[in-house]
Amino acid sequence: MNPYANLSPADVRAKIRAGEITGQTSGMCNGFAQANLIILPKAYAYDFLLFAQRNPKPCPVLEVSEAGDRMLHRIADADIATDIPKYRIYENGVMTGEYTDVSAFWRDDLVSFLIGCSFSFESELLEAGVRVRHIEENRNVPMYLTNIACDPAGALHGNMVVSMRPLPPEQIVRAVTATAAMPRVHGTPVHIGDPAQIGIRDINKPDFGESVTIHDGETPVFWACGVTPQSVVMASKPTLAITHAPGHMLITDIKNTLLKNG
Amino acid sequence: MNPYANLSPADVRAKIRAGEITGQTSGMCNGFAQANLIILPKAYAYDFLLFAQRNPKPCPVLEVSEAGDRMLHRIADADIATDIPKYRIYENGVMTGEYTDVSAFWRDDLVSFLIGCSFSFESELLEAGVRVRHIEENRNVPMYLTNIACDPAGALHGNMVVSMRPLPPEQIVRAVTATAAMPRVHGTPVHIGDPAQIGIRDINKPDFGESVTIHDGETPVFWACGVTPQSVVMASKPTLAITHAPGHMLITDIKNTLLKNG
Repeated sequence: MNPYANLSPADVRAKIRAGEITGQTSGMCNGFAQANLIILPKAYAYDFLLFAQRNPKPCPVLEVSEAGDRMLHRIADADIATDIPKYRIYENGVMTGEYTDVSAFWRDDLVSFLIGCSFSFESELLEAGVRVRHIEENRNVPMYLTNIACDPAGALHGNMVVSMRPLPPEQIVRAVTATAAMPRVHGTPVHIGDPAQIGIRDINKPDFGESVTIHDGETPVFWACGVTPQSVVMASKPTLAITHAPGHMLITDIKNTLLKNG
Repeated sequence: MNPYANLSPADVRAKIRAGEITGQTSGMCNGFAQANLIILPKAYAYDFLLFAQRNPKPCPVLEVSEAGDRMLHRIADADIATDIPKYRIYENGVMTGEYTDVSAFWRDDLVSFLIGCSFSFESELLEAGVRVRHIEENRNVPMYLTNIACDPAGALHGNMVVSMRPLPPEQIVRAVTATAAMPRVHGTPVHIGDPAQIGIRDINKPDFGESVTIHDGETPVFWACGVTPQSVVMASKPTLAITHAPGHMLITDIKNTLLKNG
């Protein structure tokens, strides 16, 4: 059990803000949704929002801030420049550093986009009797850059990033139906089976996160991932982008169940 | 049976383009999704896309055109200036005319937003054994301006428009579950019961469309409606907006079933 599993999101965000928590957030604040982050200058905001509309599986947008406003108001009462454990800064598509606080980089033209996270559907998977290997092995989820081209929008283009959970064949149907009810957190898998078919060369070497054990007879199942905007940033090279470090999410004030249809 | 029920979308759009069809489109091209339209100058496009993100029940966006491009490429191979039977033009929030073709008003900075339509879930309702009164009575669906404030975005604000179907109590649950699976076409009802609670004074006098019979013992059930952008235009007064006339939709090339989760 994660030591922060039963704390409130506000309490955990306070510890993150104070620098007491700088690691990945899987397992914290049971039942509450976590979110991916991409911050872009306003000049790219329309293109990004359109990109998200065209690519809803990797980029289901949960909240968009007002330009220049560090505070979120809808999914969390949070300061987006301080309340994530680890950030990445990209300049012209190249990662130039990781930081636990990005206040020093803030500008009046920055817009924050918060994107649904597959951590939200993992409790649904567990409830449906589906095993989640990286939770069992206490690791970050394995994530991979694929050859699946996203639908471009304006200046933004790039390939999809996916997360992977290995499943015994008899659990695949339940994994599909459980995630079908949650389109705001990536919904159903984008691929089931051979990793090579989506351009993954070595399933044991994820591009982000950590590898997990795949037992004999298990099939890798892939879901669209909210790290996709970082692939887009690397391909499209906007002047500046600030993101979360993969696995180091914003913990929101909304319950996962609110992200189900209805 | 509508005389155009079994024609292809491309054939019906050709008749619309030629001026042979100028009426409402309910019942045409069985199984194919229809879409609401709002066209705005690029200066308002970010605010509208953000408005839609913040108000997904009334404004589930299916496609956004490139600025200045009259052609759609995703949900239909269509010319958006000619392929809808009847348009409305609003200048500074005031409707200044209805037209069957808006080519003469086209500008290089116009962006078209196509929005999901409740016609798409009506076949699901019928399949689930739920009666749809306006289809039985061969009328346009009744639509009402409510007192439900949408979440504003930039220059855009306004109240929600809803469509109404009267149901016997034993059919309400099935209507909720059938529409829960279709969030891209408004999803579940926003209100069930007393019209006065959402600011509707006279259920027999809809603000758009036509009234339908409500039998003794039936409950009015309300769904968010893609005419909401027209309420937003009237409240927010952008310099120019071009919309469909309520009930006179774009007939797309995609099947309703594709708009279900999955």
